[in-house]
Amino acid sequence: MRRKPGIAALLTDFGLKDHYAGVVKGVILSVCPDARIVDLSHDVESQDVAAAYFLLENSYRFFPGGTLFVVVVDPGVGTERAVVGVETADFTFLAPDNGVLGFLDREERIRRIVRVTNGKYFLQPVSNTFHGRDVFAPVAGHLLRGVDLGKMGERTDSLTRLTVPAAREEPGAILGSVVSIDKFGNLITNIPSEKLPPGRGVRVEVGQGVIRGISRTYSGRKPDELLACVGSGGAVEIAVNRGSAARRLGVRVGQPVRVTLRPR
Amino acid sequence: MRRKPGIAALLTDFGLKDHYAGVVKGVILSVCPDARIVDLSHDVESQDVAAAYFLLENSYRFFPGGTLFVVVVDPGVGTERAVVGVETADFTFLAPDNGVLGFLDREERIRRIVRVTNGKYFLQPVSNTFHGRDVFAPVAGHLLRGVDLGKMGERTDSLTRLTVPAAREEPGAILGSVVSIDKFGNLITNIPSEKLPPGRGVRVEVGQGVIRGISRTYSGRKPDELLACVGSGGAVEIAVNRGSAARRLGVRVGQPVRVTLRPR
Amino acid sequence: MRRKPGIAALLTDFGLKDHYAGVVKGVILSVCPDARIVDLSHDVESQDVAAAYFLLENSYRFFPGGTLFVVVVDPGVGTERAVVGVETADFTFLAPDNGVLGFLDREERIRRIVRVTNGKYFLQPVSNTFHGRDVFAPVAGHLLRGVDLGKMGERTDSLTRLTVPAAREEPGAILGSVVSIDKFGNLITNIPSEKLPPGRGVRVEVGQGVIRGISRTYSGRKPDELLACVGSGGAVEIAVNRGSAARRLGVRVGQPVRVTLRPR
Repeated sequence: MRRKPGIAALLTDFGLKDHYAGVVKGVILSVCPDARIVDLSHDVESQDVAAAYFLLENSYRFFPGGTLFVVVVDPGVGTERAVVGVETADFTFLAPDNGVLGFLDREERIRRIVRVTNGKYFLQPVSNTFHGRDVFAPVAGHLLRGVDLGKMGERTDSLTRLTVPAAREEPGAILGSVVSIDKFGNLITNIPSEKLPPGRGVRVEVGQGVIRGISRTYSGRKPDELLACVGSGGAVEIAVNRGSAARRLGVRVGQPVRVTLRPR
Repeated sequence: MRRKPGIAALLTDFGLKDHYAGVVKGVILSVCPDARIVDLSHDVESQDVAAAYFLLENSYRFFPGGTLFVVVVDPGVGTERAVVGVETADFTFLAPDNGVLGFLDREERIRRIVRVTNGKYFLQPVSNTFHGRDVFAPVAGHLLRGVDLGKMGERTDSLTRLTVPAAREEPGAILGSVVSIDKFGNLITNIPSEKLPPGRGVRVEVGQGVIRGISRTYSGRKPDELLACVGSGGAVEIAVNRGSAARRLGVRVGQPVRVTLRPR
Repeated sequence: MRRKPGIAALLTDFGLKDHYAGVVKGVILSVCPDARIVDLSHDVESQDVAAAYFLLENSYRFFPGGTLFVVVVDPGVGTERAVVGVETADFTFLAPDNGVLGFLDREERIRRIVRVTNGKYFLQPVSNTFHGRDVFAPVAGHLLRGVDLGKMGERTDSLTRLTVPAAREEPGAILGSVVSIDKFGNLITNIPSEKLPPGRGVRVEVGQGVIRGISRTYSGRKPDELLACVGSGGAVEIAVNRGSAARRLGVRVGQPVRVTLRPR
């Protein structure tokens, strides 16, 4: 008996006002009528590979084993950039090889990387401007039907890395930055909460904001007050209780964040 | 034979640009692979419990019997606010006990209310900042798999109410307010159309706008003209034919609306 | 054995912040619990029939045969405008007869057009303001369950056309216009790429922008440079590599575009 098709989780910068995301779904369903499609997000900032990287890194492990992630944030569409399929123990990822999957190297045991080149699985003729429709969607459909990734092209060992900023430590302080700002205006940093020594006070500085101590929840300070807490991805986050830290502080992704450890 | 899993209808303020809504779906599907997930909306204004209340009250009865509504508009995430599961004759609701389900008391016969506390059904460790992922989603998955709500915690009798503004009558007039402004700029009031005596003219006043008579449709006046009609929820609505009443009048939720009944 | 229900692809201007799109799905699922619903888009500009026409024309053929397209962009809701069901060899379309399906006449062999009037298949009482919920959704549900379109009303021969601007040729030049601007700020024109004679240079003028030559991809010029290419729908498109042509040029839908064929 055939296993029922897994899930395709879509992550694109196509937005929802145009037909692009809908057409990708239509093509997947044309190839694999039983496919189950879940929108991870279509509202990645246009061509922001780093934002897609962050979003996917914080999401994929919460999906059922067997999920196929289809990532189309692809400023190089139509150029010589490769399309890759990557298999780990639990998941398959299909994406342009532009660094968006770069976290896999570090976080998962990669089983195979395949450079997707077999035009037999593409929608012909392949346009130069919409590989989501002509390459990613039909290949995803065939993968969901059970076609082996190995048939899609040649194996390769290389996966493009994205240089993502990491926090660094100096005596008595951790220096990081804002790596994402969410819909609530919370500032998500690259400072892992494990770096905060338990039982020591800290001071968090970001832009004009200075915060003393780490709150347990977004409600750990009075409404409208700035606070720092541990976000759901395990990193230090700066928020305003019932408000927007981004608006309060006027900061953007990339803004430096300094955590000073107070002497014991 | 097991009944096929019902539908989970999701209502959150997570937006669609971040991974939050997608991760909630991933966790539900991890627990209940056959779950069918429908987005009611993820674009509730951040932490606007009253908006979620209005949206859910106007929606739930149009879903199939057996639907599980999962509501995550939750300014108190991580605090002592309870998470409740509420069963009515036809539906189950899972939400923070912050008033967002307050209409159920009035509109449905409630069968049980359960305070959801059984960590066995949570994603461990439970974060303090993303109960959508760690509490609501896995509990929803287990409910969809057929686990009885009673296993999720202790029964309770109390459900937090939200004070929602009601229209009031005075001789010859009804005084209400704008309770929602939709994407089209239509102003939805809390004045039930049954309060409008048939066969009597009315005058509707809102901000700088004065409207005589109730139109049958949004096209009941010339393009760009302000009009009042009976909206799909049964309340008086102020609109502009092929335009936006909100933009025309510059009003917001909470704006008073006065309906004057003209003498017979 | 009954065939499994087809797919309902939804195209509306309801947006995602209100309950309208969710309620449409709830009603479809109430009538046809096995329906599979795909969002084509809910973010068509309010009441912009031409935008919905463009979006649908560029999408429908990428969906599986048997797909039912439900289009609710309906400025005339509640008025005497008809609701029509249209069957082609592969698809069924349900829409207000306001021109949004006008491309079918030209691109498909139409099998039947039915004026949908049979109140037996509506949600009663039918409101005057939300036919998406009361007419389109329940009729869609019944069609997905296999009820014949012929039962929904009387056959008709007429389908309202929408006047969409077409490019026209003059000696040495093609005169067209911008018919859509996508989320990336790409300007999609109504100039078919087949009109560009191979091997001859062209000059493309739109607003203040002048472009020499047609690039193969969006990356065909340096980052931030204006370029013209052939879009995924086969028409000339104006873009900025890794930027927004709409923002660069400050143009809107309707803006004239001139392609001058350079002498051989």
